[in-house]
Amino acid sequence: MSLVVMKFGGSSVGDAERMKRVATRIVERKREGNRCVVVVSAMGDTTDDLIDLSRQIAGSTPPAREMDMLLTTGEQMSVALLAMAIRELGEEAMSFTGWQAGIRTEAVHGKARIQEIRPDRLLKALEEDQIVVVAGFQGLTEDGEITTLGRGGSDTTAVAVAAAIQADLCEIYTDVDGVYSTDPRIVKVARKLKEISYDEMLELANLGAAVLHPRAVECAKHNKVNLVVRSSFTHNEGTTVKEEAIMEQGIVVSGIAYDKNIARISILGVPERTGQLAAVFSALAKEKIDVDIIVQSGIVESQAEFSFSLSGTDVERALQVIENLRPVVGFRSVTSETGLVKVSIVGAGMVSTPGVAAKMFETISELGISINMVSTSEIKTSCVISGERLHDVIQALHTAYGLDTDSTVFVGGPSDRR
Amino acid sequence: MSLVVMKFGGSSVGDAERMKRVATRIVERKREGNRCVVVVSAMGDTTDDLIDLSRQIAGSTPPAREMDMLLTTGEQMSVALLAMAIRELGEEAMSFTGWQAGIRTEAVHGKARIQEIRPDRLLKALEEDQIVVVAGFQGLTEDGEITTLGRGGSDTTAVAVAAAIQADLCEIYTDVDGVYSTDPRIVKVARKLKEISYDEMLELANLGAAVLHPRAVECAKHNKVNLVVRSSFTHNEGTTVKEEAIMEQGIVVSGIAYDKNIARISILGVPERTGQLAAVFSALAKEKIDVDIIVQSGIVESQAEFSFSLSGTDVERALQVIENLRPVVGFRSVTSETGLVKVSIVGAGMVSTPGVAAKMFETISELGISINMVSTSEIKTSCVISGERLHDVIQALHTAYGLDTDSTVFVGGPSDRR
Repeated sequence: MSLVVMKFGGSSVGDAERMKRVATRIVERKREGNRCVVVVSAMGDTTDDLIDLSRQIAGSTPPAREMDMLLTTGEQMSVALLAMAIRELGEEAMSFTGWQAGIRTEAVHGKARIQEIRPDRLLKALEEDQIVVVAGFQGLTEDGEITTLGRGGSDTTAVAVAAAIQADLCEIYTDVDGVYSTDPRIVKVARKLKEISYDEMLELANLGAAVLHPRAVECAKHNKVNLVVRSSFTHNEGTTVKEEAIMEQGIVVSGIAYDKNIARISILGVPERTGQLAAVFSALAKEKIDVDIIVQSGIVESQAEFSFSLSGTDVERALQVIENLRPVVGFRSVTSETGLVKVSIVGAGMVSTPGVAAKMFETISELGISINMVSTSEIKTSCVISGERLHDVIQALHTAYGLDTDSTVFVGGPSDRR
Repeated sequence: MSLVVMKFGGSSVGDAERMKRVATRIVERKREGNRCVVVVSAMGDTTDDLIDLSRQIAGSTPPAREMDMLLTTGEQMSVALLAMAIRELGEEAMSFTGWQAGIRTEAVHGKARIQEIRPDRLLKALEEDQIVVVAGFQGLTEDGEITTLGRGGSDTTAVAVAAAIQADLCEIYTDVDGVYSTDPRIVKVARKLKEISYDEMLELANLGAAVLHPRAVECAKHNKVNLVVRSSFTHNEGTTVKEEAIMEQGIVVSGIAYDKNIARISILGVPERTGQLAAVFSALAKEKIDVDIIVQSGIVESQAEFSFSLSGTDVERALQVIENLRPVVGFRSVTSETGLVKVSIVGAGMVSTPGVAAKMFETISELGISINMVSTSEIKTSCVISGERLHDVIQALHTAYGLDTDSTVFVGGPSDRR
């Protein structure tokens, strides 16, 4: 008998019918002989509807404490209804809010981190053979204030609960049936990965493969929780995320990820003084503008030149921030370029295999595309390039790293994704 | 500086605009120099929408624990949004769920009674000059289970909170501007009462003048909380409910109440044995059929005859229950009559004034109407009569007991009720 945590997102429980389907799935898992803890998000549009209500009353800057009070009702509704749906199918079930589940967070509203879980009530209910249904995304501070965990919060709740009750498995049910070697909407022969390591998953998640929130993956890694990403609509086997993923023969790169709508800003003719870089990036950070790759080119005649990549939506604001710094930093000029993309190869095997990055540069060059910026880590290499031929680049890399699957292993593509 | 509890029902906060209007009302009260605690119900149709959702999933008998989990989200939304609306107007405000407000209830779902309030957090927030917004209708058991208080729950929350924090006043804001001597839709010259005693209010509430829930009045009486019933739409003075209401000169009867759709069932030829009455009424109670007035007539030839009144909607079920008892009780026949009404006069002065009930019988007889059943208590006399001329009867009694107000005292009528 295994102890399984199952997490379902908002779209899986979007209405009464879907709720019932999820309940059926859970009851199946229970009747296979498992003890089940379910973590669930707010139903479909509930959160958006609540945000809309708050806007009508408090405009675009509602007080964070009250916003948490408001939004946490969404998951509370879900858990109650899901427990009802499970009981309709003849199994015992009990719902718990975040605070009832003993989820303690730091005292920050809107994006609190889980500090501790005191799972006494959950364990007691499991002993009584209940299916335990826990509200995702929410917790309580030591002072009894209701908090939300921010983006990806329900994934994190699931993993943290799995760690606290020492579950054998934490299953994340989603609208795709696993983690793919790249976006199957672009590459028809994309391969569904059987296993992937935490670190690879982290890189993929950070790179926009939005199947699992990075914070949840970090939490899983830290607590050695075995994660499975699988579909809530099919019974296909999913992808397991674990410490030591089996490396397939000849596969050094596990996946290819991309980010669209990237921009580059270059600041030219910066006088060589200490602290100039810091001044620019502190000012950007203060405006909550995320900077990704930073490249400083050689210093010519005591003048430096540096470039950085950022989201295309932040370019105008960033340029304004930099312009405001002109009196302090004293640069010659600023240029920007939009319509770029970032393509990344990710693989735990890269660190021990020479020439992996070189093959990437080669493949891109062979397509006649120039590389604007490069960044590397132990398990990832990213290139910022023009966005025009993104699909060709991804397809070429996918083939170059031996990721194209044969027809018998083919498991999904655009039509399988709902 | 007074400490005031203000309670607003669901229709007062039905949408964002109404919510803002209520917030304005609260901020006014605060700026008059009061410390304010607000108790609020779920917005307009929220509860019905939630019930509808539960029906789609669990039919008409959802599990009570999960139903409480679901329904309490309604008030949690309200308090969050109302606190936001108040803050938009420039005052500090904090919302609290029932459990955060320290409201402890017995361990019953769907209709729990408040056992205790531990108002530490509310008092702390008041000290910080916050307007405190508390979710009505809900509480927590010692075991940490979320409960609802059942019908009239928000009124009860308001009164119980007022008692716990020793408020000077508990104001119940509603869609009428006070308690009237009778239904102003029927009697144009109905008089709005300035004051009324707890006991009188209790009788009126039980008789269907649904301004205040009886449980809330009982709680106010027990804790000597000064209640004010007033309109959320006008600034008219309301009606104060307190222990010693000033009795107006010559006014013995304070109000005239009525219940429509009453039926009478008579059981004839019941053999005189002990326990026959008990058998009938236990069986009816088991079917949750409420019986009101019971009259047993004299015994003739060892056979008793008794009648009782009940809601017209329960007649068919009641007749069935009685028919099933025929083998046990052994009566001769059963008759029933529907389309009746119950008219009641209520007044704390009745007990010390002879002839009050006699005047009622006289007035009804003078209209040529016969009285089917009578019941009396210290402050109330009720008559069950044919429903055809209800308006005439109420108008005649209103005049007979000197309740018709002169034009200067006239405070309301149908057009004032929204």
